[in-house]
Amino acid sequence: MIAEIVSVGTELLMGQVVNTDAQFIAQRLAPLGFQVYYHTTVGDNVKRLTAVVHQAVERSDVVVFTGGLGPTDDDLTKETVAAALGLTVEPIPEEVERIKSYFESRGYAMTPNNYKQASFPKGSIILKNDFGTAPGCIMSAADKTAILLPGPPRELFPMFLNQVMPHLERMSGNKLYSRELRIFGMGESSVTYQIRDIIEHQTNPTVAPYVKTGEVTLRVTALCKDEDEGAALAKPMIDEIVSRLGDIVYSTMGESLPETCARMLTDDKMTLAVAESCTGGLVTSQIVDIPGCSNFFKEGCVTYSNEAKMNRLGVSGETLERFGAVSEECAREMAEGLQKTSGADYALATTGFAGPDGGTGDAPVGTVFVALSHSGKTRVKRLNLHGERARIREVASLHAFDLLRRSLCE
Amino acid sequence: MIAEIVSVGTELLMGQVVNTDAQFIAQRLAPLGFQVYYHTTVGDNVKRLTAVVHQAVERSDVVVFTGGLGPTDDDLTKETVAAALGLTVEPIPEEVERIKSYFESRGYAMTPNNYKQASFPKGSIILKNDFGTAPGCIMSAADKTAILLPGPPRELFPMFLNQVMPHLERMSGNKLYSRELRIFGMGESSVTYQIRDIIEHQTNPTVAPYVKTGEVTLRVTALCKDEDEGAALAKPMIDEIVSRLGDIVYSTMGESLPETCARMLTDDKMTLAVAESCTGGLVTSQIVDIPGCSNFFKEGCVTYSNEAKMNRLGVSGETLERFGAVSEECAREMAEGLQKTSGADYALATTGFAGPDGGTGDAPVGTVFVALSHSGKTRVKRLNLHGERARIREVASLHAFDLLRRSLCE
Repeated sequence: MIAEIVSVGTELLMGQVVNTDAQFIAQRLAPLGFQVYYHTTVGDNVKRLTAVVHQAVERSDVVVFTGGLGPTDDDLTKETVAAALGLTVEPIPEEVERIKSYFESRGYAMTPNNYKQASFPKGSIILKNDFGTAPGCIMSAADKTAILLPGPPRELFPMFLNQVMPHLERMSGNKLYSRELRIFGMGESSVTYQIRDIIEHQTNPTVAPYVKTGEVTLRVTALCKDEDEGAALAKPMIDEIVSRLGDIVYSTMGESLPETCARMLTDDKMTLAVAESCTGGLVTSQIVDIPGCSNFFKEGCVTYSNEAKMNRLGVSGETLERFGAVSEECAREMAEGLQKTSGADYALATTGFAGPDGGTGDAPVGTVFVALSHSGKTRVKRLNLHGERARIREVASLHAFDLLRRSLCE
Repeated sequence: MIAEIVSVGTELLMGQVVNTDAQFIAQRLAPLGFQVYYHTTVGDNVKRLTAVVHQAVERSDVVVFTGGLGPTDDDLTKETVAAALGLTVEPIPEEVERIKSYFESRGYAMTPNNYKQASFPKGSIILKNDFGTAPGCIMSAADKTAILLPGPPRELFPMFLNQVMPHLERMSGNKLYSRELRIFGMGESSVTYQIRDIIEHQTNPTVAPYVKTGEVTLRVTALCKDEDEGAALAKPMIDEIVSRLGDIVYSTMGESLPETCARMLTDDKMTLAVAESCTGGLVTSQIVDIPGCSNFFKEGCVTYSNEAKMNRLGVSGETLERFGAVSEECAREMAEGLQKTSGADYALATTGFAGPDGGTGDAPVGTVFVALSHSGKTRVKRLNLHGERARIREVASLHAFDLLRRSLCE
């Protein structure tokens, strides 16, 4: 079946927001077997919207619309799509009641505009909006289906996952089972090269790479009748990929590196402290992002100045003078000093030159040391990173977590 | 003039990447006076690409294409667009030479595919690619202009700013002067309400609001002949907005809150230390993001556990027992203890319940205290924030910076 995404909103045409809705929907349509040939964005203008709607309904079987469902006269999507499908919009009594009681409970009267939000073609599937006022809907005529969703991602994403996906699965006769393999320590082109025959011969399940700074994710997706069949279909491919790539695959369940470390620390009942120089709070803040981190996280020290490295961690002035703050010796003393002063089981430290200034002949910008101290042993790893300051800090953080993960795996 | 953006790439249709190119281009077309009516995304398929190109060229004066400029047979944008404009692509001798010498200098021979990348319609403006191999180009026929750009944002963004903007400015007969007013402490709807008459009567300059977590940006854009005229046109509107909104406008030069604080600290030759509990490294990491922060930043302490609050900052066990870690008293002792132990001029502290668990009857999830200690005085501010854990932490960080900024302004 051919599918198409139509986004309605002048704020998209003007570039005031980026179209994450289209990406989110596309990611889920394609693996279900829908062929997505076009995304179109158009403004809140009757003539142009009508033209786009007619073209989409003509050339595609399923059209997903986002935006333009609000209560004002500018919001035209529902009326325009209904007209294109030869349907008429009318107030649906249950919806009118729902909105009326919503307003009454707040001491307001319902205005004529609100009737607009309670109006749909008869027989439409109305999609409840748990995070906003505009309901979505699914309307059909002949062999065409139009799915209308509100524009704000925090309203659209849950509505799509909870209410639209089951419908799409029924339409395609398939369910979608999907698993994310998260990889650190190899670039996208090498990862895809290692599994090029799998990619080339894929049918069901499929595998698609996604990249973000320093990391690669492989999403394995199986079309299936139910969860069990999906898991069974995906398993051989996942096993094969993991056996080829080895321990650079740090999660097969879509967990991030910090989440993976957090789970392992919690399971082992171990505690963690972090001392950061160049990453400056980035490692710590990714830990504190995780709900329940108080179970294992003791503290973080962003010892950016030499003074702080000495006062907080007991790094010796001699080490700083002789080897500099960006040195294996300093990283080691930071981790060891942190373990002593914090009493944590694992003490993780970073120091480096993130740029754009700084760096020396031996240790240019991008030189970073990560160190981990645990039960009397300290390892230090030297990194030579490239790119902007923000990128160097991000990738250094990932290496710190990876060092911790590898130690936790032992 | 009517403009349109056409993005070519199966990876966009599949949702493997989000279309930031379209947003970036749209943001710059609209203020120059181009009317952007459509964005279309289509895959690397001759038939559908041809249909989309013909439709775009027919209904718009200027069409900006992104993607599909690579050397492989799949990359069809240039050939398809040229054909739609009735132009023929042929190897351009200077481009062939450039690519040949590029390969020779690396010891490789040029392959037939590389001739493809050196081929353009005669008379095209060729756009140099400083960050990749595929050059862009601008081709014209009759009264239509097609601008072809490579897909990767790190190639497209600089090419657009440096080589396409001057051309668009010439076409529109205008230059663009733009300034960002950054606002913290008022929501978007209140901000736009305060300046509703300015928005309603805007002609040149224009003003447009952009929102991100906890903050509002107003971008004031003037069409002008040169920088001086732009500044002169924008000034009365900027002054009027600032006089209405007052000191919630923390920058009229597009600086972020951390950047604003960093500049003020550097100018005043003052130093800063940070102690964080619920924000957990987020404040610190935004400081360390700023190049040159070593001029003013001494250290950060993420004292997540009570133990760390006592050991690192000297918070008293009695305070923690009597008032709890999320209390005005604890925030005060954190800031004061940090100032003593770090020796910094400004000591900033945060403590709160970011959720999803935690919180008490008096201090539910979202309760955060930010404190600032400076030259013998400590102020503490209580916040009642809403939303997810990540949002609470982000907004709390902004409040911490705002407290610092206001003190630096005195």
